[in-house]
Amino acid sequence: MSIRIGILGATGYTALELIKILLRHPEATIVALTSRQEGSPHVASVHPQLTGRLDLCLENLEPTAVAAKTDMVFSCLPHGASASSIMPILEGNTRVVDFSADYRLRDVPTYEQWYGQVHPDPQRVGKTVYGLPELFASEIGSAQLVANPGCYPTSAILAMTPLLREGIVDPSEIIFDSKSGVSGAGRSPKLTTHYPECNESLAAYNVGRHRHTPEIRQILGLAAGREVDVLFTPHLIPMDRGILTTAYAKPLKSVSESEVIHVLRSFYADRPFVRVVDHLPATKDCTHTNFCDITARVVGGRIMTISCIDNLIKGASGVAVQNMNLMFGVPETMGLL
Amino acid sequence: MSIRIGILGATGYTALELIKILLRHPEATIVALTSRQEGSPHVASVHPQLTGRLDLCLENLEPTAVAAKTDMVFSCLPHGASASSIMPILEGNTRVVDFSADYRLRDVPTYEQWYGQVHPDPQRVGKTVYGLPELFASEIGSAQLVANPGCYPTSAILAMTPLLREGIVDPSEIIFDSKSGVSGAGRSPKLTTHYPECNESLAAYNVGRHRHTPEIRQILGLAAGREVDVLFTPHLIPMDRGILTTAYAKPLKSVSESEVIHVLRSFYADRPFVRVVDHLPATKDCTHTNFCDITARVVGGRIMTISCIDNLIKGASGVAVQNMNLMFGVPETMGLL
Amino acid sequence: MSIRIGILGATGYTALELIKILLRHPEATIVALTSRQEGSPHVASVHPQLTGRLDLCLENLEPTAVAAKTDMVFSCLPHGASASSIMPILEGNTRVVDFSADYRLRDVPTYEQWYGQVHPDPQRVGKTVYGLPELFASEIGSAQLVANPGCYPTSAILAMTPLLREGIVDPSEIIFDSKSGVSGAGRSPKLTTHYPECNESLAAYNVGRHRHTPEIRQILGLAAGREVDVLFTPHLIPMDRGILTTAYAKPLKSVSESEVIHVLRSFYADRPFVRVVDHLPATKDCTHTNFCDITARVVGGRIMTISCIDNLIKGASGVAVQNMNLMFGVPETMGLL
Amino acid sequence: MSIRIGILGATGYTALELIKILLRHPEATIVALTSRQEGSPHVASVHPQLTGRLDLCLENLEPTAVAAKTDMVFSCLPHGASASSIMPILEGNTRVVDFSADYRLRDVPTYEQWYGQVHPDPQRVGKTVYGLPELFASEIGSAQLVANPGCYPTSAILAMTPLLREGIVDPSEIIFDSKSGVSGAGRSPKLTTHYPECNESLAAYNVGRHRHTPEIRQILGLAAGREVDVLFTPHLIPMDRGILTTAYAKPLKSVSESEVIHVLRSFYADRPFVRVVDHLPATKDCTHTNFCDITARVVGGRIMTISCIDNLIKGASGVAVQNMNLMFGVPETMGLL
Repeated sequence: MSIRIGILGATGYTALELIKILLRHPEATIVALTSRQEGSPHVASVHPQLTGRLDLCLENLEPTAVAAKTDMVFSCLPHGASASSIMPILEGNTRVVDFSADYRLRDVPTYEQWYGQVHPDPQRVGKTVYGLPELFASEIGSAQLVANPGCYPTSAILAMTPLLREGIVDPSEIIFDSKSGVSGAGRSPKLTTHYPECNESLAAYNVGRHRHTPEIRQILGLAAGREVDVLFTPHLIPMDRGILTTAYAKPLKSVSESEVIHVLRSFYADRPFVRVVDHLPATKDCTHTNFCDITARVVGGRIMTISCIDNLIKGASGVAVQNMNLMFGVPETMGLL
Repeated sequence: MSIRIGILGATGYTALELIKILLRHPEATIVALTSRQEGSPHVASVHPQLTGRLDLCLENLEPTAVAAKTDMVFSCLPHGASASSIMPILEGNTRVVDFSADYRLRDVPTYEQWYGQVHPDPQRVGKTVYGLPELFASEIGSAQLVANPGCYPTSAILAMTPLLREGIVDPSEIIFDSKSGVSGAGRSPKLTTHYPECNESLAAYNVGRHRHTPEIRQILGLAAGREVDVLFTPHLIPMDRGILTTAYAKPLKSVSESEVIHVLRSFYADRPFVRVVDHLPATKDCTHTNFCDITARVVGGRIMTISCIDNLIKGASGVAVQNMNLMFGVPETMGLL
Repeated sequence: MSIRIGILGATGYTALELIKILLRHPEATIVALTSRQEGSPHVASVHPQLTGRLDLCLENLEPTAVAAKTDMVFSCLPHGASASSIMPILEGNTRVVDFSADYRLRDVPTYEQWYGQVHPDPQRVGKTVYGLPELFASEIGSAQLVANPGCYPTSAILAMTPLLREGIVDPSEIIFDSKSGVSGAGRSPKLTTHYPECNESLAAYNVGRHRHTPEIRQILGLAAGREVDVLFTPHLIPMDRGILTTAYAKPLKSVSESEVIHVLRSFYADRPFVRVVDHLPATKDCTHTNFCDITARVVGGRIMTISCIDNLIKGASGVAVQNMNLMFGVPETMGLL
Repeated sequence: MSIRIGILGATGYTALELIKILLRHPEATIVALTSRQEGSPHVASVHPQLTGRLDLCLENLEPTAVAAKTDMVFSCLPHGASASSIMPILEGNTRVVDFSADYRLRDVPTYEQWYGQVHPDPQRVGKTVYGLPELFASEIGSAQLVANPGCYPTSAILAMTPLLREGIVDPSEIIFDSKSGVSGAGRSPKLTTHYPECNESLAAYNVGRHRHTPEIRQILGLAAGREVDVLFTPHLIPMDRGILTTAYAKPLKSVSESEVIHVLRSFYADRPFVRVVDHLPATKDCTHTNFCDITARVVGGRIMTISCIDNLIKGASGVAVQNMNLMFGVPETMGLL
């Protein structure tokens, strides 16, 4: 099998990381890259890391033109634009992983409240599978469209889902204190991500109003079987990549630390990319890989989890390829170890 | 007035920062530096930043010999060693600020439990003023010995004390999620602070058992008038200096965000080094200064505070000089703006 | 004496650093800040570090309006705009330090070739003192207008001037391989200074065509008494601040390393901000200070110098205040130690 | 084919990087790891990145015991110890790549002068192939023992060899000003690599006496067919990985920039891991890859080259696997793209 691949919006960091993963993937062939940049620049002029590794130009192609020559499209477009581009592709047989938030939320009003715009494709909202393979592998396998998860939600959901499913932690209050490297903010220069501003500094941002909040809440709600109250605080950390999420929850029953870790370990026993560890993980243990490392602590009557991922890989492009592998029936780990 | 100053244990980062502040202080004269290093090295050979700025050697002096020629001694020695060196000094009139934890806690058993050793000077435990000038200025002014606060506790205590005093937050559960630059770990090379280990990485450490926990608990207990349940999680951040503490508490009454900020602002109205701000502060707003920036948010039924300091200045050497200023009756801000 | 000060173009990093230095300067009072930003924002909303420290707004004032209420104006405007703003000020008695390159070069054609624009004030080109106090202190003292040096040139010129004056090194080929922190690139976000681009990376830029090349060449030419051939290569380093310049020259006579260091040390014996050291200096020895550390090595028949400064202080705002001190007859080191 | 592999001295960064590459290599199977650490720790307890990826312990094995069960041994031991361990292995058929400097130099006196010790295996000095595949591929293919190059030398030699072979640059003076990330200093904590010391700082080190100097000189001497005078200055840069070498040479004939680039491009036309580029490369273009990016400039009558590598991959473990591929007749790029 060779999967012919197109990438919409190939100028950003997630697209670059996706290309690098796909270049190592034995069944993938990248055949089209798009961008709205003038002059169809060579991919290596946009991403010098790819010099000599991929001989394609970024073209301003219509989504259907990309679909016509591919089996699989990854959309790295911004929300709104992404759904609009994906809709015509779904008329055909090409399969799609959407990196944007357009199809992640379960209902249209929540989308429109948090993203401040009308949804271009309200019909598919709530019917699209959430592309977290550790939770939804079977639906992903048969889906034409998969909503790739947000980076922060991946670190939060993987840590707390097993504990909510087992009824160990109280869904009525879970605090996620998350810390992310700067690549998560994208490739467009802004003052907040200007080197001398964010280097040697640290700040919280979007407190109480980050758009990943409803995403975490909805997916954890599925695990808990009821509404989950999530307080999510993101912080910007002076490093390229990596997310560490420290979560604080109340136990619903008396459990020891080793019992909590055991629940996590059992839940992920067959999942190749979640590593439940006893030590306190560092983001560096996971960066440049598709792994998520998780541990738990019981402190002062509370249950804490600490989880680490690479925001660009397990939090974006790695999980996207993991989803593709499931969609095309090749081994889930192909190209990712 | 000219205050003659001695520094015990002058090889570390807090001593270096202290020396740099004192060199700008119009009433301070550094007359003695000690260390156990062989050969009495010149201070500039240990701290090249001080080349041409201070012409003293680090000598292996007895504490009483330092006391004999100084009005004021700062002890930058490790806990245990610090109290042992300070005890003979207190026989005379020389005043002392102790950077170690030896005199911070209110009772001996807590000290011995958390620090794992017998206290060399149990008589003074519980009778020594905690050197946080925003809370204890008058006791500091008349004290011979002041226990300089820990860096994390300063960021935590300044944020929550006004809210506990006003009865706004529930003392039965306060979570402090703290993030610190690496200089807080001191100047002795270790694998965890080796550049390629901690650079481009992030991890929690000492979860549930960091020694600053009882210090925060005891001082906040004074503010609350009852026991305070503190969950404190420190994280190591790839930057030189700066601490940001994100705190999560439950309100005891219904308050708005602006009311919480108003309580903080009123409390610190006359305090020159606490800046209550409306925006989300970054550590860089405070690094290389003696300021603590604090803001508050009310999110999802919880009260959050975010506070920033420079761990080496407001968290160590700056507040030490602020304490000295109060002890010698010079303006509190002298040498610190 | 109290020097009333205005700053033109107060939104950038050099202006911020200048303000912080002046706030500590016992004879300086900042009375006016300008910018073209709409709405006259408070300085603390542009520079949160200044919260509570300076109560001024950034106003869109005419240069003459600033001059009318000040004794001293610092222009932090871009080249071209700077000279145009300074010209009317010089009609009065207000004195000016220009941070831009407008008055640094000795002749108009070189300026127009390297800066690609017509000089707004050609009359004063070649008649304005170059504000490097270690070389031109007496002219600076009596000048109304001083051209503040470039950051790279300061590191290069201070290292090589004594050796050229003494006829020790061959002016026909001097290589300056310079490395700078990112704050030198200014505060406007660009892709090259976007955190995930320049962090964890290193590159040369503007090879063979950086605008500081003619500046170094002209000032070293004065030292050598003849034309000096300069090859200057700047590199962008993932750190906030600091410049290290490694220089390679050929000896004109046989000298030992200690003789070269002796020449440097003698030359700067009375200069408070140049520290000639025997060890290999690190930029961190100088950052956040107005010092320049220099050493020399004789290796393989060549003479090398290594010099470090803080690009924002000795390379910009610190030397500007040093110049002001000379212009107003106060101690050269005032506010700078 | 499956190549059974042993790694001597598996606790450091080059060993970790080597293991990660080999885990992706379709023909490699790691069967033994050694270290002198007590208690035969699991590799994942030493390198948490490898959790779940490699199930081996680090054992204190004799070199011959490792050789008995492997086809290929990589020695990551320090110089001296490395040759002593390799000598008995060479009695058998197991092939060896030595990461240390023991077999790199062409003569024993130079080794003993620069490394300050007696060589344990003087017989093989001068007869061992230098493992830079771009220059010595055919000798490497048939060798039992290959001396893996130093990281700095790789960046210097690849840039200058084509220009020396073509007689374009003067071998009588070539300056290499090199800048390296901190992982190059190894994994043992030292004050110079302690985070708060080297972060936000920059310094030259070992000026005129770095041990890579004779290595560069000898290999470039082979290219030039005569002695080459090399001045090599390493600098420590606050980043994890990456080397950029800026080289300055004198032309022997008049050449344009495009001619110099053409010479480089022709020389490396068939070499998969050297990318001759027109733009100024950044280390980030090469980090986490086995590529070396090179460009050239003609400035002020001099020829400059700028070359970038990842010090741990093309500068150590990547080239080691490239050598292994040649030694076992599998495609040179296997596991490395």
